[in-house]
Amino acid sequence: MGHHACPAAAGAVLRDFSADHRQLSINTATVRRQGDLLAIIEACARAEIPAISPWRDQVATVGLDRAVKAVRETGLKLSGYCRGGMFPADPARLVEVQDDNRRAVDEAAALGAPCLVLVVGGLPQFSRPGSAPSKDIGGARAMVEDGIGALLDHAAKAGMPLAIEPLHPMYAADRACVNTTGQALDICDRLDPGRTGRLGVALDLFHVWWDPELYAQIARCGPDRLLAYHVCDWLVPMADMLNDRGMMGDGVIDLKGIRAQVEAVGYRGFSEVEIFSERWWSLPMEEVLSTCIARHRAVV
Amino acid sequence: MGHHACPAAAGAVLRDFSADHRQLSINTATVRRQGDLLAIIEACARAEIPAISPWRDQVATVGLDRAVKAVRETGLKLSGYCRGGMFPADPARLVEVQDDNRRAVDEAAALGAPCLVLVVGGLPQFSRPGSAPSKDIGGARAMVEDGIGALLDHAAKAGMPLAIEPLHPMYAADRACVNTTGQALDICDRLDPGRTGRLGVALDLFHVWWDPELYAQIARCGPDRLLAYHVCDWLVPMADMLNDRGMMGDGVIDLKGIRAQVEAVGYRGFSEVEIFSERWWSLPMEEVLSTCIARHRAVV
Repeated sequence: MGHHACPAAAGAVLRDFSADHRQLSINTATVRRQGDLLAIIEACARAEIPAISPWRDQVATVGLDRAVKAVRETGLKLSGYCRGGMFPADPARLVEVQDDNRRAVDEAAALGAPCLVLVVGGLPQFSRPGSAPSKDIGGARAMVEDGIGALLDHAAKAGMPLAIEPLHPMYAADRACVNTTGQALDICDRLDPGRTGRLGVALDLFHVWWDPELYAQIARCGPDRLLAYHVCDWLVPMADMLNDRGMMGDGVIDLKGIRAQVEAVGYRGFSEVEIFSERWWSLPMEEVLSTCIARHRAVV
Repeated sequence: MGHHACPAAAGAVLRDFSADHRQLSINTATVRRQGDLLAIIEACARAEIPAISPWRDQVATVGLDRAVKAVRETGLKLSGYCRGGMFPADPARLVEVQDDNRRAVDEAAALGAPCLVLVVGGLPQFSRPGSAPSKDIGGARAMVEDGIGALLDHAAKAGMPLAIEPLHPMYAADRACVNTTGQALDICDRLDPGRTGRLGVALDLFHVWWDPELYAQIARCGPDRLLAYHVCDWLVPMADMLNDRGMMGDGVIDLKGIRAQVEAVGYRGFSEVEIFSERWWSLPMEEVLSTCIARHRAVV
């Protein structure tokens, strides 16, 4: 109830996306099957897309140095780096988990990313395969908080903010046991009570659009804890729980309504398109990028 | 955090399910493909299952009178009646929505159900097909609350409590825009502040197991607002968003932990098995029922 009261109350003026795509970023997973990271960077630069958010596996395939060089030469900005996390694990694996996450921080810093996105992991057996099976999601949540806490120092030294991404509850078991914006902000409050800017939230509308508390929790974020903003759409019906995300405008998410709230609390960063979709992966990269641009201008 | 503090704090003693299945109920959708309602009632009675929760479409197929007669003759109890709801709709359809729901109340009363389970509906175009498309989930939620409020009088006259079933957020668009126990209880607080017992919650673990607030919200329910308790399991991976629910014990839900909390707050009703599953629908009815009995005793 009162879902739409906040933006109006705050007198928000939506940034105008219709005239150009200066606020667009492409998460490189959106076209990961059409080419490697260097090809994606080149295609984005050609399409005058100003920013990307690359994935670790795509960086690893071409090598960190070549990725850094390509980003620098094209002048692309980053809107984030995907991803750290997967904290729940057997005790024997915790050193490995921390090492892995420290490397993610260092790569993000080398690439000039504004934040490292954390997909925190679900139950240990899925988060770090080989870990003993558990049904204790409360325990997994405690491991996540411990893991983020242990990473904060290294991230601060690298000057790299950490952005906790709440994932849709349908991924609670196997991908992320942080499933609401409120839960992510509770972690921020406990680990960074001073709101230093070192810890915040990556808000992906696919994951959070359904949340009855969404508008209130966006207000609670404020601009200092809203580190990334991801868009796509929620299709009905959805053919696959993982790889059937929709292009913006093709689903049921009230994209402009939510952006109005995000901007009302002060967000001025990129609108990043992240679409995992067998359909969009099957189309030519240029066609996907031009569709992202058109939809960004028309419906985001 | 503190996920498991409540049951211990309350000194809960779990009811012993291991020796018999006197607390078992079968939601008849679990074996809906293997036979009609009369066949299901007969099979449940043969297996000495004490209770069922039938669906409206199954009742309609055999006729309400025959269903009532079969329930009476076998001495089966009911743990609920599925389902009313689907409130969001175009204004022109609101009379139809109320009529439909009043009939559901009357059928539940005729069958001697202890409550009518409400699956409240999502966006109007999915809740009542033909309604104008909308992306306003806040508006749909307001329609749900209005619809329940309008039904309460009729339900009270029929002596039929209404049980709001929060559905998993992955069904927010097309099936139910009430997606957490907290949200259902907020509606109860507003529409029935006196806690008359006329309005409460149907807690289905498939839908709510992931919720970081689950234990706190169960405590908030109390026994007077906890009207039904449904179990199955959450499989990883899940082949299908609708029809791949797991048999208890085959997935990741901490069934005994959650039941401990439910019983700690005073719940003493049936544990109802509701499984939508292509796999279990493909097996003989007797085999499914005997598996439900065995798992009820071993892992629920």
